[in-house]
Amino acid sequence: MQKIFFTPGPTQLYPNVAKYIEEALKEEVCSISHRGSKFQQIFHNTTKSLRKLLRIPESYHVFFLSSATEAMERVIENLVAENSYHFVNGAFSERFFTIAQELGKVPEKYEAEWGKGFDFNEKNPDHTELICFTQNETSTGAAIDLEDIYNIKKNNNDNLVAVDIVSSVPYVEMDYSKIDCAFFSVQKGFGMPAGLGVLIANDKCIEKSKFLQNKKYDVGSYHNFHSLLKSSDKNQTPETPNVLGIYLLGKVCDDLIGQGMEKIRKETEKKAQMIYDFFDNHTIYRPFVGNKAIRSKTVITINCPNPADIIKKLSEYGFIVGSGYKELKEKQIRVANFPMHKEEDVEKMLKLI
Amino acid sequence: MQKIFFTPGPTQLYPNVAKYIEEALKEEVCSISHRGSKFQQIFHNTTKSLRKLLRIPESYHVFFLSSATEAMERVIENLVAENSYHFVNGAFSERFFTIAQELGKVPEKYEAEWGKGFDFNEKNPDHTELICFTQNETSTGAAIDLEDIYNIKKNNNDNLVAVDIVSSVPYVEMDYSKIDCAFFSVQKGFGMPAGLGVLIANDKCIEKSKFLQNKKYDVGSYHNFHSLLKSSDKNQTPETPNVLGIYLLGKVCDDLIGQGMEKIRKETEKKAQMIYDFFDNHTIYRPFVGNKAIRSKTVITINCPNPADIIKKLSEYGFIVGSGYKELKEKQIRVANFPMHKEEDVEKMLKLI
Repeated sequence: MQKIFFTPGPTQLYPNVAKYIEEALKEEVCSISHRGSKFQQIFHNTTKSLRKLLRIPESYHVFFLSSATEAMERVIENLVAENSYHFVNGAFSERFFTIAQELGKVPEKYEAEWGKGFDFNEKNPDHTELICFTQNETSTGAAIDLEDIYNIKKNNNDNLVAVDIVSSVPYVEMDYSKIDCAFFSVQKGFGMPAGLGVLIANDKCIEKSKFLQNKKYDVGSYHNFHSLLKSSDKNQTPETPNVLGIYLLGKVCDDLIGQGMEKIRKETEKKAQMIYDFFDNHTIYRPFVGNKAIRSKTVITINCPNPADIIKKLSEYGFIVGSGYKELKEKQIRVANFPMHKEEDVEKMLKLI
Repeated sequence: MQKIFFTPGPTQLYPNVAKYIEEALKEEVCSISHRGSKFQQIFHNTTKSLRKLLRIPESYHVFFLSSATEAMERVIENLVAENSYHFVNGAFSERFFTIAQELGKVPEKYEAEWGKGFDFNEKNPDHTELICFTQNETSTGAAIDLEDIYNIKKNNNDNLVAVDIVSSVPYVEMDYSKIDCAFFSVQKGFGMPAGLGVLIANDKCIEKSKFLQNKKYDVGSYHNFHSLLKSSDKNQTPETPNVLGIYLLGKVCDDLIGQGMEKIRKETEKKAQMIYDFFDNHTIYRPFVGNKAIRSKTVITINCPNPADIIKKLSEYGFIVGSGYKELKEKQIRVANFPMHKEEDVEKMLKLI
């Protein structure tokens, strides 16, 4: 039976991925030198397509890492001497905070309950170097309104702002010029094999990293921002990277551009509405995020008394949904709503519940 | 025309890689959760096969990273408070040294000319924490005799010893119990797509990392040894890893076990002999590494007045050989001799020169 993965990532592969892998093998993408012109062309094509798809300003740099977790580490290493400030309302925002602690920084956090939002008027992170947002909490399905992020940046313009868009990209329509850096991995909304992270950063980030480096802070080695920039300026990476992943990302971006992000965003919103409406009207199962204004469109968490039973039943029909995150495993299911998830499959899945 | 990549890595894919990728896609390896039992089984299978193939002692840990460059960084971060000692005779041993500098350590180096060996009686790295070897210098084709490494370890038993086996594995028959850690990436001797690094480390490395962590040294976050161990004990990785790469590595290991490493090692030596004999007897082209005792069996560098011409001519017949490393680009070619390179193709290639 053909399965459809509605898991929050790794998830259903984007439909053409298998074909693109085949093409990559034919074109010997996995054998070419990562210092040669053919690789440089792939690097160039992928960053160009990604910039076009996400409307990344020309002045922002695109770096390839190996995961979003690595991106969190590199962002803290390169942008923080001592203090970062974290809006924490789930496992991944907490992880960003923990990574800062592990790297010997003194991070501060403003905590909200899991699944709840923040009162952005209550606290103002003015005495910090970096403000960290997890725009779409994959562990809970709570999202942060982009306007709230832009406002915080506007009111704290001396501070850098980093935004984790792991599970909202490419749906999220971010104005990158209003923040300083953002990052994601490709096994969620891009429906690709895992093992590639992307970091988008402006010159203020590069300057801060250089400043810290000159002050003898440990900003890492091959993946410090200076090293990443030196390589990316040549359409290269400091190390031998996941060449296949970089190639595939370009192809998937081109496909998404072809379909049109406006259309994809509308479809995403329609599917999200269907799912939330269904569970808002269900007698037993209920969306975990009560406040409709902060409900994620791409990762939808549902409270239910018997998640294992639902997961098992759906899987018998080929629909794989995610379990709740860690402690929420016994209480919730998570349903991803990414560009490769079709409306008719969402309908079929909901009918089974 | 079917090409054959004799480049030192990325290189010719192992023959069955395309088939294994197809199987992985059928088995939905790229969509499964990295926290689920199916992934744990893949992790377990791959580490089991790798242990069997390389005869890694049970007490040694196997960690997955994203590249050998990352491995260098993690090894320095986790094993060095201040002093590391590096045997440097090429670009990659130099890079290991530079990474230690970049991380704020005070590394020492014993330099030999590129392509030359070391006099291991001359210097004794006794006042250090970590002794670093690049067993097979991919930039020059000079190798270090394993007995020399074991002896240094025996004479400096309080120091940890790290060995870069990037371009000699799986050919190199290392007794892992005689060193403390070793690392490699998979796009060379394993003939796989790039984007996966492997680190093999014993409990002394774990203890040193914990000691440094307790003393508030920066040992990194998600990929510090404690975090890697906590995950690998559950057949997991701290982050979402290159799942496809981990899967493929297991399959390639099983294939190599099936063929028998003894046979592969003999073939490798025979092919290396053919190549060296050919160039030792050539009127113009000459092996760069003069001292036969330290000539690499897996990366063979040849001095030639017109490398671009040879590379071009061979490529017209489908044989892709590597250029010299960086400054040596105008003076040398590099020929890889890995398990997937067939004797008959080596013969054909040599006939063309």
